[in-house]
Amino acid sequence: MEFSSKLLENAVNEMSQLPGIGKRTALRLVLHLLRQPGQQTALLAESLQKMREEINFCKSCHNISDTQLCEICANPNRNEKIVCVVEDVRDVMAIENTSQYKGHYHVLGGKISPMDGIGPGELTIQSLVEKVKEGTVEELIFALSSTMEGDTTNFYIFKQIEEYDITTTTIARGISVGDELEYADEVTLGRSILHRVPFENSLKN
Amino acid sequence: MEFSSKLLENAVNEMSQLPGIGKRTALRLVLHLLRQPGQQTALLAESLQKMREEINFCKSCHNISDTQLCEICANPNRNEKIVCVVEDVRDVMAIENTSQYKGHYHVLGGKISPMDGIGPGELTIQSLVEKVKEGTVEELIFALSSTMEGDTTNFYIFKQIEEYDITTTTIARGISVGDELEYADEVTLGRSILHRVPFENSLKN
Ligand SMILES: [Zn+2]
Ligand SMILES: [Zn+2]
Repeated sequence: MEFSSKLLENAVNEMSQLPGIGKRTALRLVLHLLRQPGQQTALLAESLQKMREEINFCKSCHNISDTQLCEICANPNRNEKIVCVVEDVRDVMAIENTSQYKGHYHVLGGKISPMDGIGPGELTIQSLVEKVKEGTVEELIFALSSTMEGDTTNFYIFKQIEEYDITTTTIARGISVGDELEYADEVTLGRSILHRVPFENSLKN
Repeated sequence: MEFSSKLLENAVNEMSQLPGIGKRTALRLVLHLLRQPGQQTALLAESLQKMREEINFCKSCHNISDTQLCEICANPNRNEKIVCVVEDVRDVMAIENTSQYKGHYHVLGGKISPMDGIGPGELTIQSLVEKVKEGTVEELIFALSSTMEGDTTNFYIFKQIEEYDITTTTIARGISVGDELEYADEVTLGRSILHRVPFENSLKN
């Protein structure tokens, strides 16, 4: 792409560093900002920079939080004996959205993925192990995505905490509520049958 | 969406003001920035803000340019008697990319679109008419997209300059080079037959 302006080119180049944003899309977005009042660009730039500079992670669960201890960890009505292990803040938001969970979380910050250069040291695994060692945790729920990286991460953590007397569970996998059986993939359908639950339980929600 | 941090929420909200970027995509992009060195966010924010504040438009053709007169308008080897009327900088970039055109441009900044509240006054039409009045222009090439708005804009401009003795043309529409006839839409195919060119001409490129 040959740009008629260095200012335009720089903005497009920086925008296209974002994942899934190609040069054409970046140009479209930047031209949109040019047509809007300058205030919009200022707000966007300031909010990104402020977030990046001042972001804080809860010192207990490592979720993004504006306070030292996040609202969930600081809430005395939540059960700190149950800890749900998730990849990032999106998983916390998704689970919180269900209003079904009243325990704590532990945000790993990713999954073990040698291909992407992410080893256990890049994640908050050590802090999770320390938490288990301290003895307050009674159950650890693995809620990582069921990919090879997710399974590897679960297993790695499991080996680290095996010696301690806690319960480890994983979230149930199965056919989505409302989905037709015939369209489900066979692995999911298989697990769904293996891990069947008493019929009375299915009436609870 | 319930966010665990106001900083995160603000960044996601501003990001999702961009066209085609929903809240989920915005969150994905913002989380990506958090995982990258802070320098990347700083460069993105600064380049956007600098561009928005310092952007300049060529005083002759209204294309985005870092100089008073853009490189094309300032180039003595380009023919100022031929002016190609386009919507925005992307069209200039696309035509320049073909290396087939050595005239000037006139960037309208959009198309007449009452639905979007864009009247002739929002575009650089008056400046184009002035240019024609001055008498240096011999040919005006309409290169707007062939939509109702594009046709309306072409016609509006045409009526304004009708009285002056200049040639007005539009870019040829037809089957893309390399495309199969059977997949072409019928309007394009129809125009392609109506506006057929001498066979020798097709050998030139
Ligand atoms: Zn926390
Ligand atoms: Zn110019």
